[in-house]
Amino acid sequence: MNLNKRIHYLRELTTSKEIAFSVIMNFENQYYFSGLKAITYSRPIVLFVDEKEVQFIVPSLEENHAQNKSNADRVLVYYETQLHREHANSYLELFESVIESYPQNSRVGVEFGALPVSLANRLREKGFELVSLDQEIAKMRAIKDEEEIEQITESGRLVSLALEESLKHATPHVTEMEIDHYGNQALFLEVAKKHPNATLDYFVMSPSGKERTNMPHVFSNTRSLKKNDIVIHSRQVGLNGYRAECERTFFVGDPTNEQREAFKLAQEAQQLALEFIKVGVRAKEVNEVAIDIFRKANLEEYVNHRTGHGIGIGIHEEPSLKYSSDFILEENMVFCVEPGIYIPGVGGFRHSDTVILTKDGTKLITDYPRAIDELIFS
Amino acid sequence: MNLNKRIHYLRELTTSKEIAFSVIMNFENQYYFSGLKAITYSRPIVLFVDEKEVQFIVPSLEENHAQNKSNADRVLVYYETQLHREHANSYLELFESVIESYPQNSRVGVEFGALPVSLANRLREKGFELVSLDQEIAKMRAIKDEEEIEQITESGRLVSLALEESLKHATPHVTEMEIDHYGNQALFLEVAKKHPNATLDYFVMSPSGKERTNMPHVFSNTRSLKKNDIVIHSRQVGLNGYRAECERTFFVGDPTNEQREAFKLAQEAQQLALEFIKVGVRAKEVNEVAIDIFRKANLEEYVNHRTGHGIGIGIHEEPSLKYSSDFILEENMVFCVEPGIYIPGVGGFRHSDTVILTKDGTKLITDYPRAIDELIFS
Repeated sequence: MNLNKRIHYLRELTTSKEIAFSVIMNFENQYYFSGLKAITYSRPIVLFVDEKEVQFIVPSLEENHAQNKSNADRVLVYYETQLHREHANSYLELFESVIESYPQNSRVGVEFGALPVSLANRLREKGFELVSLDQEIAKMRAIKDEEEIEQITESGRLVSLALEESLKHATPHVTEMEIDHYGNQALFLEVAKKHPNATLDYFVMSPSGKERTNMPHVFSNTRSLKKNDIVIHSRQVGLNGYRAECERTFFVGDPTNEQREAFKLAQEAQQLALEFIKVGVRAKEVNEVAIDIFRKANLEEYVNHRTGHGIGIGIHEEPSLKYSSDFILEENMVFCVEPGIYIPGVGGFRHSDTVILTKDGTKLITDYPRAIDELIFS
Repeated sequence: MNLNKRIHYLRELTTSKEIAFSVIMNFENQYYFSGLKAITYSRPIVLFVDEKEVQFIVPSLEENHAQNKSNADRVLVYYETQLHREHANSYLELFESVIESYPQNSRVGVEFGALPVSLANRLREKGFELVSLDQEIAKMRAIKDEEEIEQITESGRLVSLALEESLKHATPHVTEMEIDHYGNQALFLEVAKKHPNATLDYFVMSPSGKERTNMPHVFSNTRSLKKNDIVIHSRQVGLNGYRAECERTFFVGDPTNEQREAFKLAQEAQQLALEFIKVGVRAKEVNEVAIDIFRKANLEEYVNHRTGHGIGIGIHEEPSLKYSSDFILEENMVFCVEPGIYIPGVGGFRHSDTVILTKDGTKLITDYPRAIDELIFS
C-alpha cells in the first residue's frame, strides 16, 4: 500500500488548514492511512497523524498486530490486566496524554461522522477547535491508485466466480442461506489457492420472493425458494480490504409478464448507465440516464435508491451516483452501477456490476450474463 | 421481544433524569429498543424515543423493513431519488425537524460512545443539553429476559455444533478459512432445518501457528495448517440477534512440553473461574481467580486481556470480567469465560465458553471437550 503517499497528502491538507494533528477513528480510514485492518469491536483504536509522527492507541491484545501490520511510528498500548496497572488502563488516559502534547487552542482534524461525542468533549475541554476532514478524505479515497485497482479487479473476478457458483444451486427447496453458502465455498477455495495469506471480506444476501426482494437490504434467512420465485442475489468480495460487487436478479421457474417487463427496464437502465459513464460527466447525469428509463414507463415512483455508488475499502463510498450529486467523474474512480425498481406485489429488480473508469471509458470487472433468458433456473 | 417493557423502562429512566427525548444511534441499542435489525452501512438510521412516541428516521429503501419489523409509532423517510425531492432528501433535514419539535434548552438522552459529532453539534446549536445514557442502557442489556435467554441458549447449541464440525476437519494442509467453512456449512443446514425465517449472525476465526495464535484478533486467512501447529478456533453465533461464543485451542500433531504446560494452565484458569461465578460476586473477583493461576506459574506477564465479558446482542457487552470492575454479578446475566495466555515462541492458549448465571450457579450453554487429549488431531 502507498501509505507514505497517503500520509504525505494528508499532511499537505492539514498544513494548508493549519491543523496541528488529526484524530482518525473510522476503521476504513485507519486502514487507508496506516495499513492496520483491525477487527472493530468493543475496544477503541485511535490513529493520530501530525507533521512528524503516525501514532496509534490500541488495546494490549492488538499490540503485535499494530506493530507488525502498520506504518505507525509509535504504538501506545492500554491494558486490561492487573499486572500492568501502573501503565495506562484506559484509552482515554492515553488520549488525554497525546492531545496534551499539542499547543492549546490549536486546530484538530477529525471525522465529524465518526468521532464520538465522548472524545469530541475531551478535545473541546482542552480548548481545541475541531475541523472536519470527512469530505477531503472521502475524495482522496475515491481516486484509486494502481495497487488498489489491481486488488479491486481481482475482487471483481472472485465475486463473479462466487455468484456463478451460487446461481448454479438456485432451485426450489434450497434456502437463501444455502445459495449463499455454495458461492462462499467456491470463493474460499479459490482464494486459498491463489492468494495465500490474503485477508478476505465478503458479504452476501439473497432475499427471495416478491415481498423480500422489495426490501433491498435484508440478511439472508432460512426461507426455502419456491417454484416461480424471484430472487436478488447480491455479493461483495474484498481481497485485502478492496471490494467489488456483483448482483443478479433471477427466477426459479417462469416470471410473469409484469416481472419480465420490470426486469427488462432494470436491465436497460443499467446498460445505458454503463455506456454513459465517462471522465468528466457528473454523477447526477449518470443517475438521470438510468432513471429516465423508469420514468418513461411511468414507474419512477418505484425507484427507491440512487443508481450506484463508489466502492473500495468501503462498502459504499464516493462518488454517489445520485440525482443531487455534482461530483465530476474522474479517471481511476471505481463504482457499482445498480439501478433498481421495487414494485409491491411484483418484486424487486436490480443487477449490479463494478466498473473502473479509465480515460477511454469504463472497464467492467464483474462478469455474469444479464439477460433474462440466462437468469431463469428450474 | 419485550419491546414494550424496554421502552417503558427507558421512559422511567429519562423521566427521572428530566430528559425530553432520547436519540439512539448504536445499532445494537436500536435493535434492543425497537426490534429493527438493520444492515448498517452508509445511510444513517436514527431512533427517537420520547414519553409518547417511538420514531425512526430511515432511508427510503429501509421504509418497508422499519414499518414491518419495528415498534415505531412513526417512520420518517429520507429519499435519494429525484421524484421525491419535495420530501426530505437528507436525514439531517429530518433530524432538525424532529429536534425542533422539543422545547429549547431541554435535556436530550444520547449515547456518548455512538452519537457522531455532526449530530451532537446540531443538538448543541439548538440549545439542547446532552446527557449520557450509555451506562444505564448497558446495565439494562446486561440482565436478560426469558426470551433472550432462550435465544442465547439455542445459539450456544448452534455454536458448539459448528465448532465440532470445524474441528473434525482440522488436519495439516487445510487452510484456516476452510476449517471455518465446514462449521459454517453445518450451521446453515441446522438453522435452515430448525429455524425457518430466523436471522443468523456468525463470526469465526482460526489463527494458526505460534505467531498468529499470539494475535488474539485476526481474520482467518489462507494459511494452510502445518504438522504440529497450534490453532485457536473461535466462533460466535447469533440466532435472531442473540449471541453465544465457543472457542477451543487445539493441535494438529504433538504439542511441545511448554505448550502442554501453558494449555493446562489456561484450561485450569477457565475451570476455576467457571466454578467461582455466582450471584453476588464482583466481576473483578472472577478475573482474579483465573489470573492467579497464571501468576503462580510466573506467567502473568503473558496475560493480555480480561477473563471474560458479557454477551447478547453485542459481541462484547457488560459485565466485563476485568480486574478493575466492581460490577456485581446478578441472576440472568450471560458471559463468556475465556482467560488466555499468549507466549511468544510458544503460542496462544484460550478456551471460551458461554454461561448463564442462575440463582443456583452457572449454566454452561456451550459444549465441547476441553482437555488436551481430546484436542490433538492429526
